[in-house]
Amino acid sequence: MTEGKRVDWQKARDLCAKIYMARGIPEADAYMVSDNLISAELNGVYSHGITRMKMYMRYIDNGQANSSGEIKIINEGPATLHIDGNNCLGAVVATKAVKKGIAKAKEMGAAIVSVRRSNHFGTAAYYTQMIAEQGMVGIAATNAFPHVAPLGSSKEYLGTNPISFGAPTASGKPMILDMATSVVARGKISVAAEKGEPIPLGWALDADGNPTTDAKAAANGVLLPIAGPKGYGLSLFIDVLSGVLSGAKFGGHLGPHAVGNTSKDTDVGHFFVIVDISRFMPLDEFNERMGVIISDIKALPKIEGVSEIFMPGEIEQRKVDVNMKEGLLLSEALLGELQKMCERFGIDFNL
Amino acid sequence: MTEGKRVDWQKARDLCAKIYMARGIPEADAYMVSDNLISAELNGVYSHGITRMKMYMRYIDNGQANSSGEIKIINEGPATLHIDGNNCLGAVVATKAVKKGIAKAKEMGAAIVSVRRSNHFGTAAYYTQMIAEQGMVGIAATNAFPHVAPLGSSKEYLGTNPISFGAPTASGKPMILDMATSVVARGKISVAAEKGEPIPLGWALDADGNPTTDAKAAANGVLLPIAGPKGYGLSLFIDVLSGVLSGAKFGGHLGPHAVGNTSKDTDVGHFFVIVDISRFMPLDEFNERMGVIISDIKALPKIEGVSEIFMPGEIEQRKVDVNMKEGLLLSEALLGELQKMCERFGIDFNL
Repeated sequence: MTEGKRVDWQKARDLCAKIYMARGIPEADAYMVSDNLISAELNGVYSHGITRMKMYMRYIDNGQANSSGEIKIINEGPATLHIDGNNCLGAVVATKAVKKGIAKAKEMGAAIVSVRRSNHFGTAAYYTQMIAEQGMVGIAATNAFPHVAPLGSSKEYLGTNPISFGAPTASGKPMILDMATSVVARGKISVAAEKGEPIPLGWALDADGNPTTDAKAAANGVLLPIAGPKGYGLSLFIDVLSGVLSGAKFGGHLGPHAVGNTSKDTDVGHFFVIVDISRFMPLDEFNERMGVIISDIKALPKIEGVSEIFMPGEIEQRKVDVNMKEGLLLSEALLGELQKMCERFGIDFNL
Repeated sequence: MTEGKRVDWQKARDLCAKIYMARGIPEADAYMVSDNLISAELNGVYSHGITRMKMYMRYIDNGQANSSGEIKIINEGPATLHIDGNNCLGAVVATKAVKKGIAKAKEMGAAIVSVRRSNHFGTAAYYTQMIAEQGMVGIAATNAFPHVAPLGSSKEYLGTNPISFGAPTASGKPMILDMATSVVARGKISVAAEKGEPIPLGWALDADGNPTTDAKAAANGVLLPIAGPKGYGLSLFIDVLSGVLSGAKFGGHLGPHAVGNTSKDTDVGHFFVIVDISRFMPLDEFNERMGVIISDIKALPKIEGVSEIFMPGEIEQRKVDVNMKEGLLLSEALLGELQKMCERFGIDFNL
């Protein structure tokens, strides 16, 4: 088993940014994407970490995404921002949009930010963390390429459409929930299919719409939403808020395989709710109340075999602590990808 | 099997309002509560229909809720409303709060409404429907008495904490999702326990924290959140938004059995997000886009045994059509409760 090696997270961030800069992305934007990926690595959300660099690079190489340019405000209301992402990389678009939203929420108490013409924005948690660090509560959601079947259908139409909630706490580490509305990500099924392992019933349907435990059959089929009608409804409403309301593509119209897609743009949509806590109570009081809810839950009796009850995002935060201290554990494959990109752009591969 | 009888929904609404008025609730407020209950009956959500009258009446009789009085604005920002419900009935508080929120969203593009010192507000769908009918998208959430165990615990701490999303459509009938964050309501387990029927694994734990299919054991135990960590996180964040942020009670502090509860007030909290669509696109265009997403999904291939794919809230809307035409089907037991309340207040029981 090749475990790869531990690398300093700041060095990794700088290297990723350097690679993006070499591809024509302005320095500040390159650091936005890089920080987003490294944050996912730190949190142990490897599916949204450095492994995404290849995909983002392909977007730019294909002309699917712009390497530079500015997001545009289509319409600004006292409490609303409607933003055109100008088809830049999603992490750049969403980071800039959320920053504008935070500034508006500071002024008005709350802001709704609706974004179109964006791309895959990384983890939704990245943005609710940004918001929570400003003493605000946040909701972040995005639509995504269709992999999930609406309840009763055998065909994919909705994305894994994640939603994240974030709130500050007294410890300085926000409470963050980041959940896909599908039972699992497609990646989990691919991994099981590669290993020849079965998957639990309820994760997916095969190509004929039958429930299956065969990972290979599932890989050719569709993902299922969480909790039946609830997850289906939640995923659909995330698309209504992210896609329909913003003017982005939605549902089965997203993605390169969509029928009638003449434009290369992925045209992903996002939706953010940002609420300034100080309009409701002093932040200290909110933090204290969060402390009560956390310590209450931590002190509850546990079921057999459970040694600790975790808060949303807590397991990830512990990984951040470890990974910041010990370095990011990058696989040989991932290091190889980084090295190849360095070679392409004549960058010194110095991790 | 006593099926009860069909009664005209408007007559039922008037009678319920009359009963509330006889208990000292001002006419407009009495109609707010009554309309809320009858709307649930029309939608086939019987658990939140006329059956709740007894509970609401008990709240007033016990001094747990005020029969009259006005909600108070604690703090108003350009895009925020912080409201004290003055311990009136939840449907009265929430209806008034949402109306104020809609007016604010018309002016500012969006409004966040946070409510404390309220009570059980009926279905969350009632409020997102109100919002959607104004050409807006809405989110409504509330905390509730603790019946659900956080993931890993054997003890209830969170409520079934529902969240609802609503958006207008071209048909004039909004798309409405209203979901509890527990797998089922406690009522479903009570019904199974009464009938001596088993329940599916995953609905609940027994009093010792063991998964159970025994409805009686489950009735003495705790409900489980949907989708494991996702439903737990969602339920917890609904409480953070509804309870912690508003200054209401939260988690295990809600409800008459809470340790250290010296006040009779239930002090439930609500959270509403109201977004004016016209800040993002003309309502007609939004409705057209909703039409596309709906007709796309309706036209998807179906799995075996499924004759139609439903949109969130669509099954309920069909029930409304039937119940408006044919009348509400009220059980003998429910008619008996209404008759008893009529006798108490000397009201003619004329359904």
